[in-house]
Amino acid sequence: MKESVKVFSPATVANVGSGFDILGFALSNRGDIIEVLPNNEKSLRIINESDTDLPLNPAKNVASVAVAALLGELGSEQGFDLVFHQKISPGSGIGSSAASSAGSVFGVNELLGRPFTLKQLVSFAMQGEKIASGVAHADNVAPALLGGFTLIRSYLPLDIVQLPSPEKLLCTISHPDIIVRTEDSRKILLKEILLKDAVIQWGNVAGLVSGLYTNDYELIGRSLQDVIIEPVRALLIPGFDTIKKAVLKAGALGCSISGSGPSIFALSNSEEVAARIEQVMQQIFKSMDIEVDTFTSHINRQGQKIL
Amino acid sequence: MKESVKVFSPATVANVGSGFDILGFALSNRGDIIEVLPNNEKSLRIINESDTDLPLNPAKNVASVAVAALLGELGSEQGFDLVFHQKISPGSGIGSSAASSAGSVFGVNELLGRPFTLKQLVSFAMQGEKIASGVAHADNVAPALLGGFTLIRSYLPLDIVQLPSPEKLLCTISHPDIIVRTEDSRKILLKEILLKDAVIQWGNVAGLVSGLYTNDYELIGRSLQDVIIEPVRALLIPGFDTIKKAVLKAGALGCSISGSGPSIFALSNSEEVAARIEQVMQQIFKSMDIEVDTFTSHINRQGQKIL
Repeated sequence: MKESVKVFSPATVANVGSGFDILGFALSNRGDIIEVLPNNEKSLRIINESDTDLPLNPAKNVASVAVAALLGELGSEQGFDLVFHQKISPGSGIGSSAASSAGSVFGVNELLGRPFTLKQLVSFAMQGEKIASGVAHADNVAPALLGGFTLIRSYLPLDIVQLPSPEKLLCTISHPDIIVRTEDSRKILLKEILLKDAVIQWGNVAGLVSGLYTNDYELIGRSLQDVIIEPVRALLIPGFDTIKKAVLKAGALGCSISGSGPSIFALSNSEEVAARIEQVMQQIFKSMDIEVDTFTSHINRQGQKIL
Repeated sequence: MKESVKVFSPATVANVGSGFDILGFALSNRGDIIEVLPNNEKSLRIINESDTDLPLNPAKNVASVAVAALLGELGSEQGFDLVFHQKISPGSGIGSSAASSAGSVFGVNELLGRPFTLKQLVSFAMQGEKIASGVAHADNVAPALLGGFTLIRSYLPLDIVQLPSPEKLLCTISHPDIIVRTEDSRKILLKEILLKDAVIQWGNVAGLVSGLYTNDYELIGRSLQDVIIEPVRALLIPGFDTIKKAVLKAGALGCSISGSGPSIFALSNSEEVAARIEQVMQQIFKSMDIEVDTFTSHINRQGQKIL
């Protein structure tokens, strides 16, 4: 076995407007940096060298839970140290837990000589998501592992489809310094929805997928429209409607909530428009006295990267 | 103006499993044959030379209603005779009313020197659908006019996306001799659905669109799965579950209800499998003493054809 592997595991945007629980894509310039080393303890250890607080109990950390699922499948008793050098802020809505789970199972799989494909790793990483939010969703871990845009066509059985990522697509993220717990933002959703709204939603999902295949940026933009989840979750994000209106006016193709929030994302296809979107997002959060971290990223087509 | 135009207007399969109210495709070997001639009466006349009963009152015939909408938009008082030489059986679930509306507005548009694009004609043809079923849906008229697979991304505003049609795709249709009124099959649908079912459905819609772009026949097949509409409407089609199970066993990629039924469609990608599917469908309906018309068609990529 190699002595260690150090991995960049990307942040991700799940849901992507209309694709609640099924669509996601990976970002280039935010992510976890995780070093994975075999140990002789037959146990998993979390070592935190990042600036962020992390649960050190392996039964409560998403990364070790995901790795334990992988080792369980292999029947392996090998122990590993998972050293976090850099960590996405938890609760940001850009797949913090997914980055940790995905990066850790990826690293362990590398050290073990790749017994599993990337798609197979998704189901282990999902076990981490279950600890984080109560639901083993895959719309962050799949793009974190595979890169680009991914579709979870089905959960039972798990069926993951890689979608194309148009070259010029830019994603601007605004992460306001407010707390929205994934669990809460799931609880406030209605269990029943109108069929007529569902029809609008799956029309948009179909349009979004078509736009990705044809590089039709306008179609991608207008297909982000989410008539079911966003109107409810937007209530938890101060200023969401104002920001959305303003970034669309500034030229964004579309705008919605990243994952369960509070981060907001907007798509564009020019650096100039992306810069304007950043400015608008910063100004509006500032005017509400809310601290905000704003950045723009290309779509990350690679997924996991060995450093 | 030309003296006349004679048009083949194709049958269509709407919904396509998971894509209720948004997806449809055109068939090659069933359709209406309609001759359109200008008259000097400043009125629309329906002339029926087919074997099928048709409403001759222009206010109640889908074709003349659609043409009236087109002429109204132009402010034209030109009259036309719409001569039906061949007519798909009404109530079959393969877009009988849509073929009439689409073919008639297409023919009139040709004679008038094409003031409208094919996509613009869809909204006129939809007025015919409103007379037929109470709802101005577009999932039959769009593929009838444009050919191939079409997506209605949005109704307000109307946004139609042409999707690719994989070359080897075959559609086998079984039209049992039972009556299911479109209006009734719409009434029995629940107005509210579970969010978790909607997520399954839009995962499948996304998978279906992806499969069409990548010629992934297996993905197309498993994405036809409809967990919302089919389980309800299947109650109106005797033997549906038995037939579906049998055709999947015979190698069909997928199987569902065509439009609002009672026709059943199954997709395959080989003539051999399609022949087996036809046989299975015929046998099962026969065993229930139900007359049935069964045929197999390529996807019709052309749409309207001038004869």
